[in-house]
Amino acid sequence: MRHTISVQVENKFGVLTRVAGLFSGRGYNIDTLNVAPTQDSNTSRMTIVTRGDDATLEQIVKQLNKLTDVLQVQDFRDGEYVDRELVLVKVGVDSGSRAEVMQITDIFRAKIVDVQPKSLSIEVTGNESKVEKFLDLMKTFGVLELTRTGKVAMPRR
Amino acid sequence: MRHTISVQVENKFGVLTRVAGLFSGRGYNIDTLNVAPTQDSNTSRMTIVTRGDDATLEQIVKQLNKLTDVLQVQDFRDGEYVDRELVLVKVGVDSGSRAEVMQITDIFRAKIVDVQPKSLSIEVTGNESKVEKFLDLMKTFGVLELTRTGKVAMPRR
Repeated sequence: MRHTISVQVENKFGVLTRVAGLFSGRGYNIDTLNVAPTQDSNTSRMTIVTRGDDATLEQIVKQLNKLTDVLQVQDFRDGEYVDRELVLVKVGVDSGSRAEVMQITDIFRAKIVDVQPKSLSIEVTGNESKVEKFLDLMKTFGVLELTRTGKVAMPRR
Repeated sequence: MRHTISVQVENKFGVLTRVAGLFSGRGYNIDTLNVAPTQDSNTSRMTIVTRGDDATLEQIVKQLNKLTDVLQVQDFRDGEYVDRELVLVKVGVDSGSRAEVMQITDIFRAKIVDVQPKSLSIEVTGNESKVEKFLDLMKTFGVLELTRTGKVAMPRR
């Protein structure tokens, strides 16, 4: 099962290394991770997507809470939240397939951010299922390059 | 000076810890970092925004290339590239300010992703200057919560 964890940390040297080390040292998987400052420049927020059963997740949250410089750990397993990811994908096109790729881009409200003779670079944002659906369609044309931010999440309440 | 570095790595245990450890061990700053799988499920891509002079950047690139499981390091200092970031921001509103926040959201082609009686949650994507401009405007209304993915980048060529 996949879980999304949000970790608020003090913006201090080595926090990322300690958090990453906790996961690798204990054998917890990281699917995606991102870290950036919050509205308070003294703190940063990490969003981590991990896999494991409920007992593993509980262990991860417990261990994270023990780390120095970790201020708050939110586990988005139960609560209502908004989640989004941004993906840049470069798709191979020719004169025959370009229009079709553009149509699909339009349907998904994605944006073409660069055009080259044999490729289109596209920015797509959305929740996991939307992004995965779009990427599945692009694979049929040929994905030349892909870079994704990993998920960020925010509670609704 | 800020630099954007893209690091392609093998999808193996502990790679993130080694990369993060390289930065913290040598005193290199990380402004933002994200890591996620690429189109090839055996590899992941990290995008790191760091600060330092050109000599520091050269050192970072050299050290990264020495790490096990690092396949390719791209330094986006010179080349032409597209960069994007996604930010979720919760802004405090009341009946007087809601319309104004909605107008600004519209101008920036940002999206309202959640509405509560006293807040709007907004998704904004763009390059650094667009995102920063939008967040500066939102600060005047009151930012309650902010989570950002950090930058991803892709060469145009």
